[in-house]
Amino acid sequence: VTTIVEKFAKLATDNAPGQEGRQNPAALADLMRGDRIAGRPVDFSHGDVDAFTPTPGSFDAYTAAVQSGGRQAYTEYRGKGEIREAVAARLAAFTGAPVAGAEEVIITPGSQGALFLAVAATVTAGDKVAIVQPDYFANRKLVEFLDAEIVPVQLDYLGGDAQAGLDLAGLEAAFKAGAKVLLFSNPNNPAGVIYSAAEIGAIADLAERFGATVIVDQLYARLVYDGRAYSHLRASSAIDPARVVTVMGPSKTESLSGYRLGVAFGPARLIERMERLQAIVSLRAAGYNQAVLATWFAEPAGWMEERIRLHRAIRDDLVAAFRAVAGVAIRPTEAGSYVFPRLPKLSVAPLDFVRLLRHQADVIVTPGSEFSPRTLDSIRLNFSQDHAATLAAVDRIAQMIERYRG
Amino acid sequence: VTTIVEKFAKLATDNAPGQEGRQNPAALADLMRGDRIAGRPVDFSHGDVDAFTPTPGSFDAYTAAVQSGGRQAYTEYRGKGEIREAVAARLAAFTGAPVAGAEEVIITPGSQGALFLAVAATVTAGDKVAIVQPDYFANRKLVEFLDAEIVPVQLDYLGGDAQAGLDLAGLEAAFKAGAKVLLFSNPNNPAGVIYSAAEIGAIADLAERFGATVIVDQLYARLVYDGRAYSHLRASSAIDPARVVTVMGPSKTESLSGYRLGVAFGPARLIERMERLQAIVSLRAAGYNQAVLATWFAEPAGWMEERIRLHRAIRDDLVAAFRAVAGVAIRPTEAGSYVFPRLPKLSVAPLDFVRLLRHQADVIVTPGSEFSPRTLDSIRLNFSQDHAATLAAVDRIAQMIERYRG
Repeated sequence: VTTIVEKFAKLATDNAPGQEGRQNPAALADLMRGDRIAGRPVDFSHGDVDAFTPTPGSFDAYTAAVQSGGRQAYTEYRGKGEIREAVAARLAAFTGAPVAGAEEVIITPGSQGALFLAVAATVTAGDKVAIVQPDYFANRKLVEFLDAEIVPVQLDYLGGDAQAGLDLAGLEAAFKAGAKVLLFSNPNNPAGVIYSAAEIGAIADLAERFGATVIVDQLYARLVYDGRAYSHLRASSAIDPARVVTVMGPSKTESLSGYRLGVAFGPARLIERMERLQAIVSLRAAGYNQAVLATWFAEPAGWMEERIRLHRAIRDDLVAAFRAVAGVAIRPTEAGSYVFPRLPKLSVAPLDFVRLLRHQADVIVTPGSEFSPRTLDSIRLNFSQDHAATLAAVDRIAQMIERYRG
Repeated sequence: VTTIVEKFAKLATDNAPGQEGRQNPAALADLMRGDRIAGRPVDFSHGDVDAFTPTPGSFDAYTAAVQSGGRQAYTEYRGKGEIREAVAARLAAFTGAPVAGAEEVIITPGSQGALFLAVAATVTAGDKVAIVQPDYFANRKLVEFLDAEIVPVQLDYLGGDAQAGLDLAGLEAAFKAGAKVLLFSNPNNPAGVIYSAAEIGAIADLAERFGATVIVDQLYARLVYDGRAYSHLRASSAIDPARVVTVMGPSKTESLSGYRLGVAFGPARLIERMERLQAIVSLRAAGYNQAVLATWFAEPAGWMEERIRLHRAIRDDLVAAFRAVAGVAIRPTEAGSYVFPRLPKLSVAPLDFVRLLRHQADVIVTPGSEFSPRTLDSIRLNFSQDHAATLAAVDRIAQMIERYRG
């Protein structure tokens, strides 16, 4: 039996993105080689909503909601009906399969809220859950909080670019071993790769065969580069849609993170459970904030295309800069705004290097250990940033790699 | 072992406040006596933020936060440091005991978020938790979600007005039986009564003696009538403050519910756990929304006094109106904006009467069954409403009681 102290030890956030301010820098002095490297600070742990600003009209929608008063302040726990209906129609069009706004959608405080509810509505103590490695760091923590068991499945994202690289034999073995839920992000966070149509088909086929539920985090599914194909699991003919919960939200590509809005859509039976849980976890997504979803998938013509173009330009320069550093392995981002370069051997421990980057070079990145025990030598960068500041910061990272090369 | 289906069955929200729109009214036709009773609809399930509007300056604080951009969109999971510091100083002054903003405060999505985190950070599967009956309906559900065991302690709120009426012998028995946590609201929701200094002292003494943690929901502690004394458990000399987590928020008296803001304050060890959990449950309270807390405990001079005066006036009229109905028992609200009258015997089941009130008289109340299995014949009304509409609605309730008197 896990004690509550042990359970919370596993949920440590000390190295999680955004929490760097709570670290104690004193211990780093002995490790430091050379002076500080000056430059504009860049926090790659999340996107910069000052560089890529929120969707046009989002604040106007918020203001109108506050002015409308109680009608918007108090909504059903699952979110305001007319907003769910509007969003459902757009999500159906985007994913290529029907969504019923009344019964199959819940609005949550951020996509994190949706992930928590989806996992807690399908997993209970002792259950086995298939988790991809590497994948979004909260996935494993959700499973651990629920006293369930992680069954890891590897993603060989550096192995080529025709597939994301999922170990399908490993996934089948996980289901055979009793995993009743698979939780994964597509595009993958941190690696920025898209699962191929063949991979999505195989996941659908295996989940259906073994009667598993699949929770797929598609938070970055709108920010796709180079015209790559994207397959929505929920639209696959190989799987009963009643087995699939999809999570999305406007926090990333649309830069609406300050409003904390997420959406989960899936079978009525699971959305109902998620609402019951939301009632005791946070009651509802903030009423006024929900109104901002009215701007989602309704951006001005050309706005999304331009946003994708600007991100792709940063990606191209950033990937080139990392490739110029001897020993770095990096796969170009296919969707989303993350890169996950693997660094060469260094003379300091990976977590110390990440701390040194912050204190010596004013660059915040997220250590690879957050995403998989097998990616300790990698770092994640969210490049939804000012273009010039990004390149200058990557130059500082390159200098730091040379100073600490092992 | 509880299955996930059984667990979620216990979390049913069908009769929870705000969820009435999801009910099916068809089955009521056979029960209905007489015609509809016309009148302006009143939803007593929550306060009316159009009648009692949000704190002056709250939207301005929000607007400034959106304009400040990324600095406010992304905060530490526990909330922005400078806001925590400001709130800590005010909560220390309000409660009469120190609060360290850096380590002892977490900002959450509503006080519901704070309650969830506090309970989940202190209770694990199989633990015993003392729960007052009646008390806020989510308390028992939180315990059930965590597969813990409820040990009920009765509150004889109709027994007199010198005490809230807690069964202290029952509380001692609960601790003796192994309850390691006590969770309760003060003032009590739904009964609107304040725990006396003697009761708070006894709770402190018992919790200290048995080594229990106490989570106290003080959401309505600012809306106190008639100059009544209010004792803050965390300031009691009889208990180690490291055993006490206090939950507050500006959703009620301040009418800021649409922003979903709550605060928990307590020992650094538990706040740290709560932050780790918030990181996977909702990440953080919406960044922009947090800025609205700057208006909390900083309202214009006289604003709170006037708000209390207006609520007291409604309370007085409402209590008089209920007392005029034969067989109704009601204790005048001492703090907060709830009354919890016990109705006389009716010819229809209590839940049916609540549904009839809604469909026949356009009055929404929350059934007593949400708060305790022993208060099925009571209804809760939040009277933070338009004064005249409240009295008209209570008149309709009185007519309905006569129609269905058993």
